[in-house]
Amino acid sequence: MKVTIRKADKSDSSEIIRLIKELAEFEKLEPPDKLACRRLIKDAFSINPPFEILVAENYQNILAYAFYFYTYSTFRARKTLYLEDIYVSNLYRSHGIGQRIFKQLIRIAKKNRCSRMEWCVLNWNKNAIKFYEKIGANPLDEWTYYRLVLD
Amino acid sequence: MKVTIRKADKSDSSEIIRLIKELAEFEKLEPPDKLACRRLIKDAFSINPPFEILVAENYQNILAYAFYFYTYSTFRARKTLYLEDIYVSNLYRSHGIGQRIFKQLIRIAKKNRCSRMEWCVLNWNKNAIKFYEKIGANPLDEWTYYRLVLD
Repeated sequence: MKVTIRKADKSDSSEIIRLIKELAEFEKLEPPDKLACRRLIKDAFSINPPFEILVAENYQNILAYAFYFYTYSTFRARKTLYLEDIYVSNLYRSHGIGQRIFKQLIRIAKKNRCSRMEWCVLNWNKNAIKFYEKIGANPLDEWTYYRLVLD
Repeated sequence: MKVTIRKADKSDSSEIIRLIKELAEFEKLEPPDKLACRRLIKDAFSINPPFEILVAENYQNILAYAFYFYTYSTFRARKTLYLEDIYVSNLYRSHGIGQRIFKQLIRIAKKNRCSRMEWCVLNWNKNAIKFYEKIGANPLDEWTYYRLVLD
């Protein structure tokens, strides 16, 4: 299967939204509503976007995507590439697409002098965890992530 | 005690570095080395800084600081204020300084239309956890944080 990994452009918007809804269903989370989808696309293709998107394409079909942005480690004094979402559509798993997206992200991170890549995974998603452990990532078990909801 | 919460400026650099080393000792983590400290200050006061700093000042003494930046929730399609570090110097705890910094961060987050504030805490830091629970924050227990070290 011929798959190209590339930066998303605006014409991918509806395909990306379709896959986000698929991801929400897979993760058993509330999908973004219409207004949030519109805001997401507006932000993604704004002049100073708060995140970047990679997509995996096969003959004009978008099969997978990754949303990422940069955070910062004060102790390392280096940027971190933070992977907010990665999703490979159900029908296209086990073809190494996730692996290729990861490789591309690692390249981007190194080019931007990041010292780390980080992301969160749902505890029950054992397949993803197996993949993350295989590529040498480690869980930060000594830390707890806190959230304060503002709206 | 008269304490002012304000944005850091370059003249605060050496005081901030002193407190970062205090935090590393408190957290039992390796403090940033000389080169990392230099890079951190350079990044902090660059034209397009990857993070922002608040400090708490009492008669020219810096007593506390917070490093933060913005991440993004694709499902909410809103920014998140991510608190990378917050530290109140040992001698000045239990004076409500941490609370005032948090209040200021919440104001900044709301002004920037963030829907959330997030941060990590070391599991053994029960005092901090008690404070976070008191202000209404929740641990994301169903997620695991992964890290891939690149250098």
